[in-house]
Amino acid sequence: MKQKRTEACESFPPPASVIPDPLSLRILGIDPGLNITGYGVIEITAGRSPKVCEAGMVRGRTRESLTARLMEIHEGVVDVIKALRPSAMAIEQLYSHYNQPRTAILMGHARGVICLAGCQAGIPVLHYSATQIKKVLTGNGRAPKSQMQQAVQRELALADLPEPADVADALAIALCHYYLNVRRSSGRPV
Amino acid sequence: MKQKRTEACESFPPPASVIPDPLSLRILGIDPGLNITGYGVIEITAGRSPKVCEAGMVRGRTRESLTARLMEIHEGVVDVIKALRPSAMAIEQLYSHYNQPRTAILMGHARGVICLAGCQAGIPVLHYSATQIKKVLTGNGRAPKSQMQQAVQRELALADLPEPADVADALAIALCHYYLNVRRSSGRPV
Repeated sequence: MKQKRTEACESFPPPASVIPDPLSLRILGIDPGLNITGYGVIEITAGRSPKVCEAGMVRGRTRESLTARLMEIHEGVVDVIKALRPSAMAIEQLYSHYNQPRTAILMGHARGVICLAGCQAGIPVLHYSATQIKKVLTGNGRAPKSQMQQAVQRELALADLPEPADVADALAIALCHYYLNVRRSSGRPV
Repeated sequence: MKQKRTEACESFPPPASVIPDPLSLRILGIDPGLNITGYGVIEITAGRSPKVCEAGMVRGRTRESLTARLMEIHEGVVDVIKALRPSAMAIEQLYSHYNQPRTAILMGHARGVICLAGCQAGIPVLHYSATQIKKVLTGNGRAPKSQMQQAVQRELALADLPEPADVADALAIALCHYYLNVRRSSGRPV
């Protein structure tokens, strides 16, 4: 199943157990794409800093058929949710000012089936813009990629910079949801 | 189930039996939308003109949640496919030159979950542009709505003009697939 689900990021091998700690919660961050959808699951345990549970990529491989690719993406995300049992999905919004409207529409297709997977699993799906995610993590809504990677590395106490970009972005989205909607609502200072 | 599936178009009540004639094939035409997705299933029997099997609408009702609406659309289309057993889905392409890119992206979400429903059912999903559909049915790629309705009425020998627009468009898409890929491949003149 692991093989089917992901091309797991080597920097973040999954823990021996994927059964969530009953006193913790997990957030699934998604960086949607038609070719590569990055995902990152972070685990929040009371009184501790968030840590990476698993991160990787779901690939849409079938080049000749959009529809088959959408099914691969949907199945991959369903698989991640079933295996890692997050309590919420946070997903990056698409720009509405893409230079290539056709690409944006096709990306919308991928995002649609990913949101569907979350809803079918009965977990809330939260939407964050790229600017919002960057601002929460670095204080700068226009932070460059390298600054974002460093912020993710610091917040999750990773030994190395998170790679590739799709996985780093997915972890950033999960952290954004944590800071805006979990840590804040638990009364702890942001 | 009927209630859940559709707001069936009153002009086209479903036949007593939804079991396909073994010597016929059914084509599901889809006019995708976030609020209303029109569908029309036509039945093709050798030596006869195509006839309407069922047509109606799947509504995305949940206004406050895009994700919930996507699930309603997906479930509605899955339901139509299960009940009417088409052998192919034909769906209208989205314009890539929408004036409102955000709307186009959101429409892409709806189209994504509809294509997914077809792929999950194991039927081919064919994509046709609005221009292509209009040209096939009327000879004019810029035909106005009224001309398209008349063409659908004539081709399907309907007593009245097909209404509403979403349903008429869905039937037109199914007919477009019939003329381009079924009738043509069967060796009969178009």
